Amino acid sequence: MADHGIDGDPADRVVEDVHRVAEDIGTMEIRGAATIADAAARALGTQAESSTAETPAEFRAELRAAARVLYDTRPTAVSLPNALRYVLQDVDGDTIGQLRASVRASVSEFCDRLDTAQNDLGRVGAHRLRDGDTVMTHCHSTDVLACVETAVEQGKSLSAFVKETRPRNQGHITAEALSEMGVDVTLIVDSAARRYLDDTDHVLVGADSIAADGSVINKIGTSGLAVNARDRGVPIVCAAQTIKLHPDTLTGHIVDIEMRDETEIVDEATAAEIGDPTVLNPAFDVTPPRYVDAIVTERGQFPPESIVTLMRDLFGEGTDEPWQEP
Amino acid sequence: MADHGIDGDPADRVVEDVHRVAEDIGTMEIRGAATIADAAARALGTQAESSTAETPAEFRAELRAAARVLYDTRPTAVSLPNALRYVLQDVDGDTIGQLRASVRASVSEFCDRLDTAQNDLGRVGAHRLRDGDTVMTHCHSTDVLACVETAVEQGKSLSAFVKETRPRNQGHITAEALSEMGVDVTLIVDSAARRYLDDTDHVLVGADSIAADGSVINKIGTSGLAVNARDRGVPIVCAAQTIKLHPDTLTGHIVDIEMRDETEIVDEATAAEIGDPTVLNPAFDVTPPRYVDAIVTERGQFPPESIVTLMRDLFGEGTDEPWQEP
Amino acid sequence: MADHGIDGDPADRVVEDVHRVAEDIGTMEIRGAATIADAAARALGTQAESSTAETPAEFRAELRAAARVLYDTRPTAVSLPNALRYVLQDVDGDTIGQLRASVRASVSEFCDRLDTAQNDLGRVGAHRLRDGDTVMTHCHSTDVLACVETAVEQGKSLSAFVKETRPRNQGHITAEALSEMGVDVTLIVDSAARRYLDDTDHVLVGADSIAADGSVINKIGTSGLAVNARDRGVPIVCAAQTIKLHPDTLTGHIVDIEMRDETEIVDEATAAEIGDPTVLNPAFDVTPPRYVDAIVTERGQFPPESIVTLMRDLFGEGTDEPWQEP
Amino acid sequence: MADHGIDGDPADRVVEDVHRVAEDIGTMEIRGAATIADAAARALGTQAESSTAETPAEFRAELRAAARVLYDTRPTAVSLPNALRYVLQDVDGDTIGQLRASVRASVSEFCDRLDTAQNDLGRVGAHRLRDGDTVMTHCHSTDVLACVETAVEQGKSLSAFVKETRPRNQGHITAEALSEMGVDVTLIVDSAARRYLDDTDHVLVGADSIAADGSVINKIGTSGLAVNARDRGVPIVCAAQTIKLHPDTLTGHIVDIEMRDETEIVDEATAAEIGDPTVLNPAFDVTPPRYVDAIVTERGQFPPESIVTLMRDLFGEGTDEPWQEP
Amino acid sequence: MADHGIDGDPADRVVEDVHRVAEDIGTMEIRGAATIADAAARALGTQAESSTAETPAEFRAELRAAARVLYDTRPTAVSLPNALRYVLQDVDGDTIGQLRASVRASVSEFCDRLDTAQNDLGRVGAHRLRDGDTVMTHCHSTDVLACVETAVEQGKSLSAFVKETRPRNQGHITAEALSEMGVDVTLIVDSAARRYLDDTDHVLVGADSIAADGSVINKIGTSGLAVNARDRGVPIVCAAQTIKLHPDTLTGHIVDIEMRDETEIVDEATAAEIGDPTVLNPAFDVTPPRYVDAIVTERGQFPPESIVTLMRDLFGEGTDEPWQEP
Amino acid sequence: MADHGIDGDPADRVVEDVHRVAEDIGTMEIRGAATIADAAARALGTQAESSTAETPAEFRAELRAAARVLYDTRPTAVSLPNALRYVLQDVDGDTIGQLRASVRASVSEFCDRLDTAQNDLGRVGAHRLRDGDTVMTHCHSTDVLACVETAVEQGKSLSAFVKETRPRNQGHITAEALSEMGVDVTLIVDSAARRYLDDTDHVLVGADSIAADGSVINKIGTSGLAVNARDRGVPIVCAAQTIKLHPDTLTGHIVDIEMRDETEIVDEATAAEIGDPTVLNPAFDVTPPRYVDAIVTERGQFPPESIVTLMRDLFGEGTDEPWQEP
Repeated sequence: MADHGIDGDPADRVVEDVHRVAEDIGTMEIRGAATIADAAARALGTQAESSTAETPAEFRAELRAAARVLYDTRPTAVSLPNALRYVLQDVDGDTIGQLRASVRASVSEFCDRLDTAQNDLGRVGAHRLRDGDTVMTHCHSTDVLACVETAVEQGKSLSAFVKETRPRNQGHITAEALSEMGVDVTLIVDSAARRYLDDTDHVLVGADSIAADGSVINKIGTSGLAVNARDRGVPIVCAAQTIKLHPDTLTGHIVDIEMRDETEIVDEATAAEIGDPTVLNPAFDVTPPRYVDAIVTERGQFPPESIVTLMRDLFGEGTDEPWQEP
Repeated sequence: MADHGIDGDPADRVVEDVHRVAEDIGTMEIRGAATIADAAARALGTQAESSTAETPAEFRAELRAAARVLYDTRPTAVSLPNALRYVLQDVDGDTIGQLRASVRASVSEFCDRLDTAQNDLGRVGAHRLRDGDTVMTHCHSTDVLACVETAVEQGKSLSAFVKETRPRNQGHITAEALSEMGVDVTLIVDSAARRYLDDTDHVLVGADSIAADGSVINKIGTSGLAVNARDRGVPIVCAAQTIKLHPDTLTGHIVDIEMRDETEIVDEATAAEIGDPTVLNPAFDVTPPRYVDAIVTERGQFPPESIVTLMRDLFGEGTDEPWQEP
Repeated sequence: MADHGIDGDPADRVVEDVHRVAEDIGTMEIRGAATIADAAARALGTQAESSTAETPAEFRAELRAAARVLYDTRPTAVSLPNALRYVLQDVDGDTIGQLRASVRASVSEFCDRLDTAQNDLGRVGAHRLRDGDTVMTHCHSTDVLACVETAVEQGKSLSAFVKETRPRNQGHITAEALSEMGVDVTLIVDSAARRYLDDTDHVLVGADSIAADGSVINKIGTSGLAVNARDRGVPIVCAAQTIKLHPDTLTGHIVDIEMRDETEIVDEATAAEIGDPTVLNPAFDVTPPRYVDAIVTERGQFPPESIVTLMRDLFGEGTDEPWQEP
Repeated sequence: MADHGIDGDPADRVVEDVHRVAEDIGTMEIRGAATIADAAARALGTQAESSTAETPAEFRAELRAAARVLYDTRPTAVSLPNALRYVLQDVDGDTIGQLRASVRASVSEFCDRLDTAQNDLGRVGAHRLRDGDTVMTHCHSTDVLACVETAVEQGKSLSAFVKETRPRNQGHITAEALSEMGVDVTLIVDSAARRYLDDTDHVLVGADSIAADGSVINKIGTSGLAVNARDRGVPIVCAAQTIKLHPDTLTGHIVDIEMRDETEIVDEATAAEIGDPTVLNPAFDVTPPRYVDAIVTERGQFPPESIVTLMRDLFGEGTDEPWQEP
Repeated sequence: MADHGIDGDPADRVVEDVHRVAEDIGTMEIRGAATIADAAARALGTQAESSTAETPAEFRAELRAAARVLYDTRPTAVSLPNALRYVLQDVDGDTIGQLRASVRASVSEFCDRLDTAQNDLGRVGAHRLRDGDTVMTHCHSTDVLACVETAVEQGKSLSAFVKETRPRNQGHITAEALSEMGVDVTLIVDSAARRYLDDTDHVLVGADSIAADGSVINKIGTSGLAVNARDRGVPIVCAAQTIKLHPDTLTGHIVDIEMRDETEIVDEATAAEIGDPTVLNPAFDVTPPRYVDAIVTERGQFPPESIVTLMRDLFGEGTDEPWQEP
Repeated sequence: MADHGIDGDPADRVVEDVHRVAEDIGTMEIRGAATIADAAARALGTQAESSTAETPAEFRAELRAAARVLYDTRPTAVSLPNALRYVLQDVDGDTIGQLRASVRASVSEFCDRLDTAQNDLGRVGAHRLRDGDTVMTHCHSTDVLACVETAVEQGKSLSAFVKETRPRNQGHITAEALSEMGVDVTLIVDSAARRYLDDTDHVLVGADSIAADGSVINKIGTSGLAVNARDRGVPIVCAAQTIKLHPDTLTGHIVDIEMRDETEIVDEATAAEIGDPTVLNPAFDVTPPRYVDAIVTERGQFPPESIVTLMRDLFGEGTDEPWQEP
């Protein structure tokens, strides 16, 4: 249970900076999948640089302890454990110096990748789009926008059906962003999607997270759209950086679906008027891999059934939690 | 071209009452599928009673002329030609007296049927529902409500997922009506339908009209829901009185889909803010028969692929327009 | 409520023979779909012949009363109401003599048809089979056997995969009957059906009853077999005489599925040994029309989606019960 | 077996004209589905007019005998038995005069219908086409051309993908005919069909015959095209006059598929060069109803699952052959 | 052909212990996938420890020879070659000492993994189950039981539909085991599975072996169940330790399906009574990957289409047999 | 842009032999996927052997320059970049000697693999075929022939349906080759494929290239065949060496489909006769992975959804082009 042969509790040697970052993540001062991932990786780097460990074992124990502190602040933020896993799984060396260098390299590699990930992903996704194509979007995803923007920058002329995406109408943000890029935008209600699939070349969606079985967890309505797209023969592509890959799902864990406030759907006065029905407002749904043609990441595109391989390459096998004591 | 051997233009002998009804239909004073059908059939009855025709041929010509006057006011109202066809196809007899009597009987039969149609339909639909079942609704249909109400009156306890049905939120009216019947109502956004299909025993929708090929024309979003319901193994039932059967489609005519005002989807200020996108607001869509399990009418239930037989029985073969000169 | 203008209660004039037949049906002395149908139709004939009615209205009322007596004995036996409906819906005439003659003709037609129905059906079904074909059967159906037997008599050489059909192993009876006809029989467990579908040309099943929406109610396991047959591209044919068409389903009624004794599945001693689980033993299941290629009847073959038309032709619209007072 | 109470063999009284028509059908002097049907119906009319029968029974027996003579010449020509059935099933009357009149009326009605059938069908099919639509054709069908031609006459601008339809390249004839109508034609090999289905609004095919189970028997390649059209969400419509409805199939008969000469596929020299393979050249294949959206006839459009009802209305129940002695 | 530069035949230096284990596997004294795998790996360890080889090449040759002896005893036992491959593919080193150490490490790692595999797998599978879920099982699998047991231990309340699994009724063993865990068990015949899929949240099956193309080879009836589960929208999960991955299938080999004794299906007396049909009793069938949602292993869960990657990681590329001379 | 710290432009030091090979590839003197790949890999080897580089950095820069020269000659030949990637990604070492040795080893490994690839692939594919099986082929593929030939050499008796494959009738070559192997060949037109799928055990096709999303790019008509094979339950296997894996598609690039000369479809005279239609003659189409059961390579068989993993293992991640300056 204890780290044998190590003096004191390594948790006590987690440096102040790590605690500060952890707190900022916990209070959502630091938010957004990429921002969290970057901060967490860098915090591990800080711990490594500041470590006063006297043995490699102590050094490793400190690092795990720092990771644990970070992890515990918001274990459901999918990019947080990914950042920690990425850095921890590559820690290698026989001396503290070697260990520290390997952490430094790993943090740097992770943060560099992260920095260019959206651009890299955009290039991959843009290659799938041809001049004159029409896409259909659901909700709002900067990864999707990156694909379209790159394609437009490549000189391709594109049109878009933008679903308004009740209840929060994130489609409005998407419509505005696409308009500014010069895309020809048509706004429709969510229910009209099937009717316009015949005029659509690609359905493009983002992801809240992606599971090891290839399922895409994304804004409520994605799965219904995907089933209709398959039925109409329209390919459906999910654009998602690898920090969205959900490592817990490697070990069978189910992704919990957030249930949001019912007033997003109907205000209290109206609810009262119509007999105060129960209102259910799930934020996301799950699209099985057989309804998705490709997942576009900054590491290239993958059939959803293969994403598990990438997930294991990047973040380890998932059956252990690298911040736990061995 | 002319009605040979008949003096004068029979159109001149169309009685005042028929013209008044025609005007009221045209100005939408008389509105609603059943109300229009009832008025049109009765107007033909009035014409028959008031006729001063001297020969059976004259009588028939007058009747056709009256039907033409009525038909021309609103040819796209599906119940109007059905009422006219129903009455005209049964006109039979060798004397004016016999002809008049046959019109009278036919009008009376039609209006009586119409009067009880929703109740009869409700009974048919209610039989499909079991105690404890959960239904999912889209938009608002009094035929659907009739099924549920009858089932509740039979002592069955029912729950309902009610889709809000953007852009006009007719789901709110449905929610209220179901609540008042004692149904346990859950309101969801349209995009959440697939997620709750697993907890649904029947999808119940109405129809704007039904085509000869078994397609159901109904509120936008019906077809996407039906495809998902089939994918999840949930039966989908369309409740529609026979006056919704679209006789033009017997002869291959396509049902035109009304495009509604874009401000139903996004108000002008918001539109401007988000880059003034094109907004498309189709009122209906078309669900192919292979995604519908049964059409429930006041004449019993039918697989959608068989509804053409009922359509031809009730309203004739459709290849001629009985109000035209032969 | 009362039959206006008729003296006394017509139920009192139902003749002894009708009551005797009714009793025999009730006690299952008379059993089997065809035998019940024949007896019921003839009983109406007896009532007509023996009637002492003085007016046509009295005659009709008596007939309805007789039908009611018969119907009430076993309302769930699907062939019983069919026989009554068939006879009653053709009663026509202005005098008692004419009415009696029409009943006589109708009874005779019905019973003659019934007499040759299985042979006629067998001929229809046999035409679908080619020399050298292999069929797969589930449970035991004399209508299926009639098809195979006629094909064999036509000189066709046939093979059969016979599913044993747990829990009652009616496949054994089918195997024996097919063997005697000279068919090359292979017996398999129910679970092995999919594996041998690749070597099967036709799946042939009977029906307990057939619903207006084209669903086939048949021995438990039929629907699972049909789904697999569709998936493997093997046509599935249901052989069923028209007396199996379930008239209640025209009006939306659901067919209740009999739940049989659990000892058919596991004896009490074994049940105790394995922890006394709940045991569910439904006798039938429901196969939706989209998994059935054709229903073979003595009136020819029909796509399941069209059977409702035949049902209405033979037995009326179903929205009224012809044995009720008008 | 014999026509009881009739002197002599009615076959001896079949008039010369009937024999001549029969011979011309047998030698294929008279050919083409519509031409055969017209000639056969008129020959029955001639028989009726020329009859010297002395009793109604004799008259009927003569008529049946004439039909038998005609039928026997080419029993597999689907329109021939349809013409005979149509006329024979409406023969009605108590006197020879009435019988003759009814034959006359029936022949006249049949031939008039036949005369306008292609135009009527064309109007029905044309209604399904919109201005700007693209159709895909397989093989060559005048019924399909009638639909397109009517649509073009209505001012609609159409494009067409024309499959060449190996081995006999009937697509060339179709291409030429469509070009002459002003349709924008693109010729492709059969294998390229799927690729261009995405740009196709309707697949339009004719039929060699249509079976009671709703299957379409048409030029080899139709079924593979239909499966791909369904997979890509493109509606597939079969245009076929009612004389193509195959009455034998009502009683389960399978439609035999003609196997054509192998030199249509590969000439003898090439065959020798490539090792003299077996060459199979089936003329037609069978498309199940679930892959067809509508059958367009001169009597309106039908879901394929409902065509059996029309078939029975027009040509009787099919379980008897009306030219046989009763 | 010969191991160049090595004195004598390395097969002569395979130690006695290895031969003993081989014999015990051959006589099925050692049986069960895990037990065989453990014994085979340890036997290789023994060979390494006991080796008197004088050169690394000799050492390697001995090891291959030992593996060959073990492999030849029961080449169809899927776990046996996996154990051998696992150990052999990691043999690494320049000296005999290094080689021996690497064998020791590899054997130890393999056996340790094996030891905890079922528990690890159970944890993965348990994560997929929620409190209140209902599972359906087919046949008997300790890997499936491990998933359920872990879930129950986590405090989840579960119900199960247990298929009896003819002909050997292994469902009874499953029912008993689940009952003892406190699961609410309902026993059904195999044919009733589809009917109860609507009330099922997960279908859980084990595997006899898993092929490189993602197919699951399991007890006869699995594939038919999986097709129905997909049709009803119920996820199907296969629980199988990695020793079940069939390495031969990497190179296209087909898995032979054992045909068992026919008396398991029908005893001789009954067979005689019913005409001595052929009886076919295949033990297993093959479920294609498109009907399986996830394969749960002790290394995490995988879409079936990705299992090939795990297979290659664990057991090599499969195109060579590591026990053959190079 | 420049290789910092390296004197002169490394492109100037690309040896004559490399330029000669490049020219021969460019002029198609060297053609065929395997021949190109072999030549390109060996040219890199030559460059390495002849290099006069003085630093490892120079050596690497020269090698990249040589690869660039080769690559630029025919960037769309899928096997060319694969050969270059394979060699370049394994270049490893700290000294020029080590680097040269690693290139030598890598080239040798690649060329050896290439040399035996078709045989190895044939063995994998042959394992899937059983004695007595019937295959269906489309177009002509030596990889497919290798599978069949190996199976025949294993003593299996096979039959084949060979599609003629319009417009260029490559099926004739396939027919001849299969005949010579002793396979029982039946030649059919492309449109007849569906009809004979019922008698087919495996559809075997080659590939022009294979995309990272598992799509198979192959002769036009492959996708339509695959959809029908899936519909009829016939497995479809693609035989393709790994040099056909299209590395550009890892980064989302679409494979361009060559449009061939229209005279392959219709000669000019005939075109004129039939109204000079547009003629479209695409060479290939794209079959999505869900319609393919397995891809057979010389490295074993893979579900198409997993091929991306093999692609990345063999040829790198694909997001960089290894011949570009870093």
